Amino acid sequence: MKQRLIFTDSPAPALASFITKVNPAGVFAITDSNVATLFNPGEMGIDRCIVIPAGEPSKSLSEVQNIWTQLVESGATRRSLIVNIGGGMITDIGGFAASTFKRGLRFVNIPTTILGAVDAAVGGKTGIDFLELKNEIGVFSTADAVIISPLWFDSLPQNEILSGYGEMLKHALLSGQETLNPLLSHAPGRIPPAGMLPLLQQSVAVKERIVSADPHEQGIRKTLNLGHTAGHAFESLAMQLRHPIPHGIAVAWGLVTDLVLSSMLHHFPGDDLHLFAQYVAANFPAPYFECSHYDRLISLMAHDKKNDRSGQINFTLLRAPGNPCTDCIVSPSDIRIALDITRDLLQ
Amino acid sequence: MKQRLIFTDSPAPALASFITKVNPAGVFAITDSNVATLFNPGEMGIDRCIVIPAGEPSKSLSEVQNIWTQLVESGATRRSLIVNIGGGMITDIGGFAASTFKRGLRFVNIPTTILGAVDAAVGGKTGIDFLELKNEIGVFSTADAVIISPLWFDSLPQNEILSGYGEMLKHALLSGQETLNPLLSHAPGRIPPAGMLPLLQQSVAVKERIVSADPHEQGIRKTLNLGHTAGHAFESLAMQLRHPIPHGIAVAWGLVTDLVLSSMLHHFPGDDLHLFAQYVAANFPAPYFECSHYDRLISLMAHDKKNDRSGQINFTLLRAPGNPCTDCIVSPSDIRIALDITRDLLQ
Repeated sequence: MKQRLIFTDSPAPALASFITKVNPAGVFAITDSNVATLFNPGEMGIDRCIVIPAGEPSKSLSEVQNIWTQLVESGATRRSLIVNIGGGMITDIGGFAASTFKRGLRFVNIPTTILGAVDAAVGGKTGIDFLELKNEIGVFSTADAVIISPLWFDSLPQNEILSGYGEMLKHALLSGQETLNPLLSHAPGRIPPAGMLPLLQQSVAVKERIVSADPHEQGIRKTLNLGHTAGHAFESLAMQLRHPIPHGIAVAWGLVTDLVLSSMLHHFPGDDLHLFAQYVAANFPAPYFECSHYDRLISLMAHDKKNDRSGQINFTLLRAPGNPCTDCIVSPSDIRIALDITRDLLQ
Repeated sequence: MKQRLIFTDSPAPALASFITKVNPAGVFAITDSNVATLFNPGEMGIDRCIVIPAGEPSKSLSEVQNIWTQLVESGATRRSLIVNIGGGMITDIGGFAASTFKRGLRFVNIPTTILGAVDAAVGGKTGIDFLELKNEIGVFSTADAVIISPLWFDSLPQNEILSGYGEMLKHALLSGQETLNPLLSHAPGRIPPAGMLPLLQQSVAVKERIVSADPHEQGIRKTLNLGHTAGHAFESLAMQLRHPIPHGIAVAWGLVTDLVLSSMLHHFPGDDLHLFAQYVAANFPAPYFECSHYDRLISLMAHDKKNDRSGQINFTLLRAPGNPCTDCIVSPSDIRIALDITRDLLQ
């Protein structure tokens, strides 16, 4: 089922008109302790707010239990509507709670971060972390509507803006020059809200097109893994070094590594690689991994959950912007070379 | 997605050939402490058995957590296969655990009770009880295959056989005289295994036809609620009186109540009602509710989770065998009359 995507300057009236249309028995918001201070439930047509602590540790089974319990206690029925208002943590856990309560309530996502808008809120992946494994428990379940508004992004710290931009760069690389050029011509965070809306719209359209062709990740959806085999390894290493970085910043670095590999193995044009790397170098923090981390990074890549086949490391690479190839097996020695070049390009 | 239904005298080779076909990375059985003694995992091609205590209290979040943990610890991947071997409790919780692990593994149901074969194992409802509410948490998720064999039923106690027969009678009433007459011509439990297979096949075909027309219970699937508004009330009352009865026996009584109401309100033929009631009276235990329980039964019906509209009590009724009508609102005074007549017919 295709979800309804609503791009708007003012999310409250958009939600109100959606509520009028579906006529639910009760509207329950799921949000976190930070975002709860940013809106007035009554003005948005929300009957009850379920608030969980902000931060990734809340994406847990015990918080799902808390949400289910509050839904039972406040008399939610199969005809109730859930509205998830927050970043990726909230749309992931809220979508999972809604999809499993009484075998599935309707739900709306209202992402409050750029990363959430272009990534987690769209495409039907819901879930929680379990035994310290990211998204280990979850279901594929598409929101009935996603209401995307740049209104929420004013209060985002620069790191969060960059994080969202990292995923937008990925979508643009998968789509082609027409989507990529407008992004590379603006510094992240220097875009006025009126200019942001069409960029978001383009970015989400790329993901939407790929996801609707392959909702359960059996083929083409793997292209969305561009930048992520290396990116996840950078993110995990940063965590281990107790110097965590936002997901999308690790992805921006990972995209550079993947373009280097694409250039080495699939004739990706050198000019496009250098233009892209210059943009990341100019706008994102520099990566802080060193030669001494390469073994650990390669081991993290080999254990990425998208790598089910023992030992081999799979990448999504590009022949050119807009022309991806999936399941590219890359040798550890080629990965070492690409990590060297990534550091050169970004430092 | 239509699930594959396999009817067979010998489930082990059927499972082995399904496993060969899908070529999974590891086969994990989920079963209960009683059923685990009835088969040899190695002979069925199973790599590891996850065993939970027998009985409805195991259909809980803590047992799902236990199953997920064992799957993580034994290295299950997205390409692994889950095989649920047991009654409705196991296929419900096992289907839920499989459908939520890494956003969904493939799973096979092998029902070991008649009730499970004709009801829980088929049709995509999975779930667990939560805060003492039946099936409060779950998802719709269809098994990749259901392997149905009467081989397991030899060891069932008579009450369990009757319970399965209750749901088979419901399917037959929804289907028509051709399905109903063969059932009414045999006493439950007196059918040789060779005769049982075609009866199971017919019964499952009725459910399969209804479910595939309406997988998420928005319309025609409500016909499967025949016998259940009253039946659930009888079952809950029995629980409260500390004299619990198997689900399908309560359904058999509820079917008589529903045929009485159908006869009062929708011209269901009196001859068919009496033939059916005679069969239930001759083969099932007599109901033990009295006039003093009517208020409680009516209140239980009003709170049935299929009754979302405040106060009104909905039934699925029949104009004739094979001709159901859903969302029939019945007044408490008509329900009282029908309960009186039910007791007369069955005592």
